[in-house]
Amino acid sequence: MARIDLNADLGEGFGVWRLGDDDAMLRIVTSANVACGFHAGDPAGLLRVCRSAAERGVRIGAQVSYRDLAGFGRRFIDVAADDLVADVVYQIGALQAIARASGSAVSYVKPHGALYNAIVTHREQAAAVADAVRMVDPALPVLGLAGSAFFDEAARRGLRTVAEAFADRAYRPDGQLVSRREPGAVLHDPAAIAERVLGMVTSGRVTAAGGASVSVDVESVCVHGDSPGAAQIAAAVRDRLQAAGVEIGAFA
Amino acid sequence: MARIDLNADLGEGFGVWRLGDDDAMLRIVTSANVACGFHAGDPAGLLRVCRSAAERGVRIGAQVSYRDLAGFGRRFIDVAADDLVADVVYQIGALQAIARASGSAVSYVKPHGALYNAIVTHREQAAAVADAVRMVDPALPVLGLAGSAFFDEAARRGLRTVAEAFADRAYRPDGQLVSRREPGAVLHDPAAIAERVLGMVTSGRVTAAGGASVSVDVESVCVHGDSPGAAQIAAAVRDRLQAAGVEIGAFA
Amino acid sequence: MARIDLNADLGEGFGVWRLGDDDAMLRIVTSANVACGFHAGDPAGLLRVCRSAAERGVRIGAQVSYRDLAGFGRRFIDVAADDLVADVVYQIGALQAIARASGSAVSYVKPHGALYNAIVTHREQAAAVADAVRMVDPALPVLGLAGSAFFDEAARRGLRTVAEAFADRAYRPDGQLVSRREPGAVLHDPAAIAERVLGMVTSGRVTAAGGASVSVDVESVCVHGDSPGAAQIAAAVRDRLQAAGVEIGAFA
Amino acid sequence: MARIDLNADLGEGFGVWRLGDDDAMLRIVTSANVACGFHAGDPAGLLRVCRSAAERGVRIGAQVSYRDLAGFGRRFIDVAADDLVADVVYQIGALQAIARASGSAVSYVKPHGALYNAIVTHREQAAAVADAVRMVDPALPVLGLAGSAFFDEAARRGLRTVAEAFADRAYRPDGQLVSRREPGAVLHDPAAIAERVLGMVTSGRVTAAGGASVSVDVESVCVHGDSPGAAQIAAAVRDRLQAAGVEIGAFA
Repeated sequence: MARIDLNADLGEGFGVWRLGDDDAMLRIVTSANVACGFHAGDPAGLLRVCRSAAERGVRIGAQVSYRDLAGFGRRFIDVAADDLVADVVYQIGALQAIARASGSAVSYVKPHGALYNAIVTHREQAAAVADAVRMVDPALPVLGLAGSAFFDEAARRGLRTVAEAFADRAYRPDGQLVSRREPGAVLHDPAAIAERVLGMVTSGRVTAAGGASVSVDVESVCVHGDSPGAAQIAAAVRDRLQAAGVEIGAFA
Repeated sequence: MARIDLNADLGEGFGVWRLGDDDAMLRIVTSANVACGFHAGDPAGLLRVCRSAAERGVRIGAQVSYRDLAGFGRRFIDVAADDLVADVVYQIGALQAIARASGSAVSYVKPHGALYNAIVTHREQAAAVADAVRMVDPALPVLGLAGSAFFDEAARRGLRTVAEAFADRAYRPDGQLVSRREPGAVLHDPAAIAERVLGMVTSGRVTAAGGASVSVDVESVCVHGDSPGAAQIAAAVRDRLQAAGVEIGAFA
Repeated sequence: MARIDLNADLGEGFGVWRLGDDDAMLRIVTSANVACGFHAGDPAGLLRVCRSAAERGVRIGAQVSYRDLAGFGRRFIDVAADDLVADVVYQIGALQAIARASGSAVSYVKPHGALYNAIVTHREQAAAVADAVRMVDPALPVLGLAGSAFFDEAARRGLRTVAEAFADRAYRPDGQLVSRREPGAVLHDPAAIAERVLGMVTSGRVTAAGGASVSVDVESVCVHGDSPGAAQIAAAVRDRLQAAGVEIGAFA
Repeated sequence: MARIDLNADLGEGFGVWRLGDDDAMLRIVTSANVACGFHAGDPAGLLRVCRSAAERGVRIGAQVSYRDLAGFGRRFIDVAADDLVADVVYQIGALQAIARASGSAVSYVKPHGALYNAIVTHREQAAAVADAVRMVDPALPVLGLAGSAFFDEAARRGLRTVAEAFADRAYRPDGQLVSRREPGAVLHDPAAIAERVLGMVTSGRVTAAGGASVSVDVESVCVHGDSPGAAQIAAAVRDRLQAAGVEIGAFA
């Protein structure tokens, strides 16, 4: 029987500000990418979401970011490798203590936003993030994009890499994502998205823009929860997978 | 033979900004109260000072604070208990990862500045800090003031409390510190300070303002390094203690 | 004919985070207390709300705060007078440029949250805020609570003080607000609140807890918009006043 | 008689942290590029330096930056144009109020650090900074590099551009600066630097790396004060210019 992990970003409020419906998403996903305070996440809010995750048996990952609350971590910052290593170590450690205080633990690391995008190709920053994870705990898997510089650097350091696919994004014939700046980059129909994810999971293939079938490497599927429609899509994905007999479970 | 711990605040720069001479102080003290990023301490700077401490065999403590870079943690903030608990957990965890990445560990917790002062009497915040330490690791000792609400709350939770005395501060006849707002609150003569600390350590007593001899509870002596004169005083204290045969060593 | 100003807090998001429905409130109020970046308000968001206010002819006030994004300015901070003066000058100036770039101007100053509450009685901080306003522009009115230390210090410096009442708060027989910690402190029924505000505006009196009629000094009524119910209440207040022939207009 | 403006970065501490000797530099320069809080500069510190500048008759400029205290504004941030416009408007306004409260005014704008470097070529960010200055006050000159995208965009918007040269930097044969990553990029000998600046000012030419004489466009010379040696160089430059009869004065 096929088995797949579902992951989503959580804990992305700050102080009085909220983003997304963490409780709804915790009923859907098996892995929660919890913010670490650099792009979002005040400690009290992080403690709340980690406690909820622990209660529901959802695994916690550290969603590390550039230091950029005003930009929500969505802007590339040309941070030096030494600084980035320390920033990532700091964030993972902070969330580890929050997770432990919640009766859980940090089980993996996933870069956020502009950092995630940068280290697909930015070799120096990719190496810095991989170094940081190894320094904290070489047994921590990293979640990211197959074929990225980040995965290459992580693998060189002996880190376990977990490839994710995106439920609501169009793929190019070469297997990469269609840029958000191009039309059709983001899919919106819950039923179609759910069917597509089911195909990815069971066949390891997805229909790219243009109609060709391409291979996708996927141990986890990223769903979003930061809008009512997004949470509905995430639920549709989960329901479709389960109806087809796919087991929803955290990656090994 | 008498034995005493010397502690000082370190890692209190931020980015390009430096404060004090960490390298000089690491040659003097046995316990380094390292900032955790809330009143000072960018991650790369914290990693540097933790590596230096590890190389020199100086123990690392987490110097937790209110979130207040602009005020250097020196301003009371009326933060709610739940928020303070999470803030302290977050800070300890962040420094734990930094310390581990340096080949060391966080061995104790010491509140900083206005938080230190507040929880001498502020019962709710004192309990919050004690809760946070216990949640992270109930085996972590706390460094602070004997007789404080903080020590009371820490002891209730089974935490080991380590009482510190201040090398350069005048004491009142009731054993409390003379307020900094009063004349004579801070001592400046290195030789006199060193002699005074020697007396505290060997006799457990100090001459208060007015001339009376009062008892002081001391397992660690706090010295400062944030000015050239301060580092010189710290060195004088260490030299005097060693000359008198007192062993300088981390508290048990 | 009676005339009254309606004011509300706006621009209180930060980056991706939103709070309240600024557009809805701009259709209701005549004075917008716009955040200045210290408790909320990233510059791009402030520019957007100031442009909307300018388009609708709603006057802009600077809602100055303690520096505390994580606490939304709701926590007392024991900031020194010199620092508070400079913090307030900085915030007013920042919003002045944003307002000018929007084709408008800052027309008054209103302290936010914990600072608002503190300077009802905290003489030193009250004087600091009044000093700051005078230093920026002695012609800027201040919005606040009649009888407060802040109004006393402001008046001493020749500033125009504009007293506000709260639409949804219960009053004590001595004319002060019932503390939020006590039951019945906040009113919830839109129709009852609207009727009550009409009474305040037309008679200068309000029924206090216990039933006594007390005098209220009011040139502006503060309404809230940070929840769907709150915006509905604000609209009910405006509609009731207009139906009774009260002119809704900015204070002179 | 030749006349030249000397400018330096000031007010670049934050809270307890200091950088450079502002008082020493205020005795040397005619234009002070004062930080605005985004890369450095807490409001109370800015008020102090603006008061000192006002007392000494040194003109104040707004040194605007990316929002990056941890990186001191030295890291490129891929901020969107709309956000950058608002960030710059906010910063200029904040410093305008601080300068006015000091009995002075903001007389020009100079971008800082990574923003300065980026908008030499980054057309979109260059346009954003120019837009922001025009929105605040189209009569504000901008200080920067001749031939930059920033100057081009500023000139298109009718802003006065003031070209600066760097006292301690080597030039390439094409008139651009030698990159800091190359050897010999920064000069260190005070007498040689002073002589070189005198040549720039009186002849409009400088000897580039390799020995060729190249033209430099210069209305202001940038000197540094963030190290003891730097302040000494700045003083040497001023003394040499005055000894040669060059008038040190703010640009028109």
